Amino acid sequence: MDRVPLPEKSLIARFRRHARPRGPLVAGIGDDCAVQQVAHGFDLLITTDFTLEGIHFRRDWLPPEVVGRRCVVRGLSDIAAMGGDPATVFLSLALPKKLPQRWVDRFMKGLLQMAAQFNAVLGGGDTAESPAGVCADIVVTGCIPHDRAILRSGARPGDEIFVSGWLGGAAAALHEFFAGRRPRFQDFPRHFAPIPRVAIGRFLREKQIASAMIDLSDGLSTDLAHICEESGVGAEITAAAIPRAQVGRKKLPVSLELSLHGGEDYELLFTARPSVGRALHRVPAQIAGVPITRIGRIIPEKTLVLIDENGTRHRLRPKGWEHLR
Amino acid sequence: MDRVPLPEKSLIARFRRHARPRGPLVAGIGDDCAVQQVAHGFDLLITTDFTLEGIHFRRDWLPPEVVGRRCVVRGLSDIAAMGGDPATVFLSLALPKKLPQRWVDRFMKGLLQMAAQFNAVLGGGDTAESPAGVCADIVVTGCIPHDRAILRSGARPGDEIFVSGWLGGAAAALHEFFAGRRPRFQDFPRHFAPIPRVAIGRFLREKQIASAMIDLSDGLSTDLAHICEESGVGAEITAAAIPRAQVGRKKLPVSLELSLHGGEDYELLFTARPSVGRALHRVPAQIAGVPITRIGRIIPEKTLVLIDENGTRHRLRPKGWEHLR
Repeated sequence: MDRVPLPEKSLIARFRRHARPRGPLVAGIGDDCAVQQVAHGFDLLITTDFTLEGIHFRRDWLPPEVVGRRCVVRGLSDIAAMGGDPATVFLSLALPKKLPQRWVDRFMKGLLQMAAQFNAVLGGGDTAESPAGVCADIVVTGCIPHDRAILRSGARPGDEIFVSGWLGGAAAALHEFFAGRRPRFQDFPRHFAPIPRVAIGRFLREKQIASAMIDLSDGLSTDLAHICEESGVGAEITAAAIPRAQVGRKKLPVSLELSLHGGEDYELLFTARPSVGRALHRVPAQIAGVPITRIGRIIPEKTLVLIDENGTRHRLRPKGWEHLR
Repeated sequence: MDRVPLPEKSLIARFRRHARPRGPLVAGIGDDCAVQQVAHGFDLLITTDFTLEGIHFRRDWLPPEVVGRRCVVRGLSDIAAMGGDPATVFLSLALPKKLPQRWVDRFMKGLLQMAAQFNAVLGGGDTAESPAGVCADIVVTGCIPHDRAILRSGARPGDEIFVSGWLGGAAAALHEFFAGRRPRFQDFPRHFAPIPRVAIGRFLREKQIASAMIDLSDGLSTDLAHICEESGVGAEITAAAIPRAQVGRKKLPVSLELSLHGGEDYELLFTARPSVGRALHRVPAQIAGVPITRIGRIIPEKTLVLIDENGTRHRLRPKGWEHLR
């Protein structure tokens, strides 16, 4: 059989070795579409996320494995934020002509390892030549029992606000890069090795604890604003309560600014009905080994309030996370 | 409520007006994931396709509506090639900073009109700034009764080979552009207004006529090679039988070369068991108003053969369709 002389043929072949139909896939790479089974009584979750060179990452700052991991973490974290279980991953990848094959191999290795760690199977994708820089678009699907997805729109006045883990650690690494330093992997794990909080999301859904949820990709202030906007409410949070990541050789806490506005931590932000007298909805101090911290509460006024260490109330403006800009 | 000052905010708002949860969507834009219902007894089809400026289209050649339509046709045609029904569309769109808003509006209009025409609902996507040129990645999902997807791998020696419509018309328009001419819309409808053959795919699946199927996006020779590779067979086709598109003011047939190797016609190529004595599998001369033409047959030798008008057999080499290269 003649081989089709497409430049990306070898990449498709490489994809394919990792994409034999299994798990929820009836058919994978090598056909016009992937065919995916969705169990009776379950809904499908779908999310898509760009990872663009120069916008979301710089090739001289991150090893290819890390770019691949972060690429798929963005989607896995969205599945976690609904309370779902990851199922499949689709990768559309446009590559510049001169990109070394070795870079692609290492990128794919990071991506596939991360996907496999969360039981997500590579189902397909597309390849093309990129006119400028690596351009990846990742689609992650997941499944969730029908009508059990935890939406952004469920927060009600009086609900308490929680976050998982520690905030600002990923942005702190970027801060180092921009200052001309080379942050070490082990000093900034949340930047180099982010972990989607799938187990926490699943726990919160199974126990029916969370009234609303989002993942912290754009930063606390912006993602809290998303919850409030979708729920038609406001929020007040206490500065001193925010769990700040400890980074660098000396493991010093990041600034309040970074913990409020730094993006890409991929922790979960959720609300829960107040626990007074309602043991069912009590939020554990730790889920899947990760601390859960109460940082504030939902209020009826459609505004964001930050309470500082003196008890003074400030208007909190969401600062959009614009990646490398 | 403060608005998040992301540059793409207005684009997300625009998406959203077209993406209220309906049809199979439980939740759409405005959450971490879309939530999609899949009816019991049905499988989900997923396909992703890049549309990159400079690779798949040139902004100075095509009106934005046409770029939008062609963008979603690529995915709808993949759903058609499995015999499925389109369900949802997801659009990841990276735009250069200086792109006029009017271009985006017209692009979205074309895309959404085409999706709506085939009952596909916009379910979400992602937006970003592009370092160079418009970069769109489209995901189309569809549904199909469990285990009824028509795969590329089902062709068997002796099966007859068919195509829908006429071939080479889309590539003929590109040929005009490259020659420095400005082809008119009405003279090259398959380039400016391609139609995914969803009704034909559905008919072939319902009647269980096709043993294997693919859509003609890369060109007849390449896509036939894909069918043969996946099925472990070869094929022989008759040059005189190939239905050549008639293009230009004088509606002249395209060259044999274009009908064999030109891409992006989005017709369907399928195989069917030989009809002798088997009325069940008889292929109609026309489906959904589009002619269906028998062009050859599947052979056991893993090679592609073209029979010319003198009956001489030639080796047919698949010529990969490399878009604007």
